[in-house]
Amino acid sequence: MTDEFLQAAIAEARKGLATGGIPIGSVLVIDGKIVGRGHNQRVQKGSAVLHAEMDCFENAGRIKAADYKRATLYSTLSPCDMCSGTALLYGIPKVIVGENKTFQGPEDYVRSRGVDVQVVNNQECIKMMEDFIADKPELWNEDIGE
Amino acid sequence: MTDEFLQAAIAEARKGLATGGIPIGSVLVIDGKIVGRGHNQRVQKGSAVLHAEMDCFENAGRIKAADYKRATLYSTLSPCDMCSGTALLYGIPKVIVGENKTFQGPEDYVRSRGVDVQVVNNQECIKMMEDFIADKPELWNEDIGE
Repeated sequence: MTDEFLQAAIAEARKGLATGGIPIGSVLVIDGKIVGRGHNQRVQKGSAVLHAEMDCFENAGRIKAADYKRATLYSTLSPCDMCSGTALLYGIPKVIVGENKTFQGPEDYVRSRGVDVQVVNNQECIKMMEDFIADKPELWNEDIGE
Repeated sequence: MTDEFLQAAIAEARKGLATGGIPIGSVLVIDGKIVGRGHNQRVQKGSAVLHAEMDCFENAGRIKAADYKRATLYSTLSPCDMCSGTALLYGIPKVIVGENKTFQGPEDYVRSRGVDVQVVNNQECIKMMEDFIADKPELWNEDIGE
């Protein structure tokens, strides 16, 4: 059974896909409550920085350092260098990754900085990205700087 | 004499300060031309992700991967984990840092990933941050997740 928070991240990814975007979603959870949700906004907002996790952090707003330090970040896809760096900046102690088969960020480096990174490899997340990458390879490459 | 591009980043930082914000500025340069400018937007936009470098990348818009790979990122202050991660995501080959006396990001890690990181330690950049940190320590700590 999929964790309710990962399900919420998947719902965000599907919302992104439905609006013409890249299907990656994220939620930020503090004390068992979702405090921010987001999805990749490259297409919808023409954004170079609003990956799902960044959109999620932005929507969560300005949060106290002590609260970030009790948070868990969920993402349907392995966070890239930018999103991993943001988790490090704010001292997020735990990151739950939907899948890292279609893309893998710097998970080992993030772990080396003390973060508990858990990769679920959820089939729905994998399928969603595989289908998207096959459908729009140029858009996907742009999103990961390739 | 200060590099014209670092001067442009300092001008962004001063614009941020003048609008009640944190005085950090950034420009992105490709083929000798500024393609994006930005300053920290934590106060002005209530943003958790728009550090100066992020605001600069966002204002530069969606850029081709091949163009990022000829770019130089200027920042008045040593880029934090988030902003360094963004430079890594897009394969920015060179980062010019105004100063790293008041804050130091993961410069060695960024260098280990092949980026040419040069720290100028410009006196104007140092003084601007020292004055700001003395004036608004809580805001500064929030910006670096402390």
